[in-house]
Amino acid sequence: MSLLEKISGKNRGLSAYGQYQSEYIYPKLEGPLRSRMSFKGREVIVWSFNDYLGLQSDETVIQAETEIVKKYGAGYPAGSRLLTGNTIYHEQLEAEISQLIGKDVLLLNFGYQGILSVVDSLVDRHDTIIYDQQVHASLIDGVRLHQGPKFSYKHNNIHQLGKLLSKVRPGSEVLVLVDGVFSMRGDTANVADILKLKETYDFTLLVDDAHGFMSFGEHGSVGNLMPQVDIYISTFAKALATTGGFVAARKEFIDYFKYNLRSQTFGRTLPLLTVASVLFKLKLLTQEGTERRNKLWQNTRLLQEGLKTIGYDIGNTCSPITPIYLTCSEEKAAHLLKELRYTYGVFCSPVVYPVVPKGTLILRLIVTALHEEKDITQTLNAFAQLQQTYGLVRALEYS
Amino acid sequence: MSLLEKISGKNRGLSAYGQYQSEYIYPKLEGPLRSRMSFKGREVIVWSFNDYLGLQSDETVIQAETEIVKKYGAGYPAGSRLLTGNTIYHEQLEAEISQLIGKDVLLLNFGYQGILSVVDSLVDRHDTIIYDQQVHASLIDGVRLHQGPKFSYKHNNIHQLGKLLSKVRPGSEVLVLVDGVFSMRGDTANVADILKLKETYDFTLLVDDAHGFMSFGEHGSVGNLMPQVDIYISTFAKALATTGGFVAARKEFIDYFKYNLRSQTFGRTLPLLTVASVLFKLKLLTQEGTERRNKLWQNTRLLQEGLKTIGYDIGNTCSPITPIYLTCSEEKAAHLLKELRYTYGVFCSPVVYPVVPKGTLILRLIVTALHEEKDITQTLNAFAQLQQTYGLVRALEYS
Repeated sequence: MSLLEKISGKNRGLSAYGQYQSEYIYPKLEGPLRSRMSFKGREVIVWSFNDYLGLQSDETVIQAETEIVKKYGAGYPAGSRLLTGNTIYHEQLEAEISQLIGKDVLLLNFGYQGILSVVDSLVDRHDTIIYDQQVHASLIDGVRLHQGPKFSYKHNNIHQLGKLLSKVRPGSEVLVLVDGVFSMRGDTANVADILKLKETYDFTLLVDDAHGFMSFGEHGSVGNLMPQVDIYISTFAKALATTGGFVAARKEFIDYFKYNLRSQTFGRTLPLLTVASVLFKLKLLTQEGTERRNKLWQNTRLLQEGLKTIGYDIGNTCSPITPIYLTCSEEKAAHLLKELRYTYGVFCSPVVYPVVPKGTLILRLIVTALHEEKDITQTLNAFAQLQQTYGLVRALEYS
Repeated sequence: MSLLEKISGKNRGLSAYGQYQSEYIYPKLEGPLRSRMSFKGREVIVWSFNDYLGLQSDETVIQAETEIVKKYGAGYPAGSRLLTGNTIYHEQLEAEISQLIGKDVLLLNFGYQGILSVVDSLVDRHDTIIYDQQVHASLIDGVRLHQGPKFSYKHNNIHQLGKLLSKVRPGSEVLVLVDGVFSMRGDTANVADILKLKETYDFTLLVDDAHGFMSFGEHGSVGNLMPQVDIYISTFAKALATTGGFVAARKEFIDYFKYNLRSQTFGRTLPLLTVASVLFKLKLLTQEGTERRNKLWQNTRLLQEGLKTIGYDIGNTCSPITPIYLTCSEEKAAHLLKELRYTYGVFCSPVVYPVVPKGTLILRLIVTALHEEKDITQTLNAFAQLQQTYGLVRALEYS
């Protein structure tokens, strides 16, 4: 048997979607990023992307980006930031984010590999990593690189985290990993409770706040606990609607990261265009005040209250990420999704086996400031109808 | 001791550059990517980036990119390609690269994490990875994720590779990793010799040809051996002067990769702007014929022959990557580099301890189609003078 034969026989990951595959994987949404886009020639209300503040397709943003590309091109500069890929824009963005959150800052050329390398760089085989079971894949890949002790605890189970901390081998430094906002459930880490454990145990806390930064506010989902968070990471892929990200921490950490993140030393720099785009977006948000953020949270309340009123189980989300937990056979799920898109014009992403247990379906709706009241009303109407047609019930495992 | 204290005491990686740090790490080159740019207010000839064909700052490229940004913005589309980040441009670029190299193709949202995930996805703990010691950091990180047997062989030592292959545990599938062009030395893998080993041993060959694709030609450094290469990967970061990349292989592999590359499933899609930029660049190269490539190789011959004539040791490079291997104390290296930049206006990147042994200095010059004859003449004159002033000798370990 060769690797090719071995792999052809494998059915792990999303290839197991089976009958959903052709329809729900690699779909092509067309038109500008707005609450309504075109899917297979018809208009759908889109609840599937993380442009929380509606910045990607903002006219002034596109105009600013156009000016930059006209001057520098999209691929400027070349090479690793360390050797040839540094510009005054990179340093300016670091300074501005640093100002916002009160820590030193280093940009990352891509969120996923940046996060992975941060985790990797912090520990050696004598150290211990303890992480929430629901942290993002990029953190998990960082953990997978770790050769020393590693333990996970049940999602947000602070008691279990405490027990694990109490059992760490003496002399082993500890890194604790959480997401600020968990991307599948939309709930937040109990950062305050975790920090309380510092009274008893010595550890370094890393918070990946990809979904929290700027959508919850300038200090993300950690709010006034920011000073006590040792390492704060966010990507620009959500509220700032582009690639890349940053890590923020005390100067000593950042000085270390500048020379010891493999994916940054050996990968191409974040393009000046991206850097300038984030700078412009941050300026725009400062000028506008909290209007976009208010709209985001108003929309979030409207959709989530509506779904709960109809009788849906959306768990304990406290963010614009809105998961509907359903008990549903695979066959029923396929029908349901089809009807949702083609009859009701509602486009959201399904999460099915093997990401969740067989018989469970999660429909994940992500609210943005771009959504309008009529989008929410139409969506709630669709879900009310579906409830009647399919007799949908909550997924017990998630309640 | 906390992680912070532990890390503050560490001096690994490029932080060990010591006195070079402020001068040679995170420098800011200014102006368009050309053979001459501005460094600290003065003009320098730049030999430090991989825009092999001079496409980044090409006026028609920038014009095409400007049109795309004006229409879509720089951050379009949002989300993972799998869920909301797919467009007809992505599929068109895959089709065009597929046409060029005769394999199925999947785009990668960033070279580093894409390569890492490809390696990671191919093997489980029963499989064996065998890799050249000089492969790129992204492949090494993929190897580091592997829980099963892994062995490295001395750079380009096919005899040792054969011995390792002969010792693989029966029933263990084997993945062999090489770079097409090795980024530090500029030499190429002996792909023909490696493929001959397939007559005796069963293995899957993966070639990372980041530096070879389009700079050596459409089939990169593997040329007419392309059909026998199982998995061919390149980034767009070198000859195509932007971020992202692709993996090419038989349909069965690509179908598998589409659903099983963690950094692609859980990372943001390659922006449409980048995709459209690569499409335009490939079209431009087709229209222009081989003019840029000829210039690149003519420049390469001119610089490399010149350096050899002066008496420098450039090893056995067979690419535009031109490493000058020197025996040189740290103190002498600092003087030398300073003089090179400030007296002679030649900007190249030093590679020092701990990347190479103490007392060894590599000056790495990367030739592009942008360089002109006068750039090469001026650079050769500088190196001739330096030879006389410093009495530079070859680094014995690299000869």
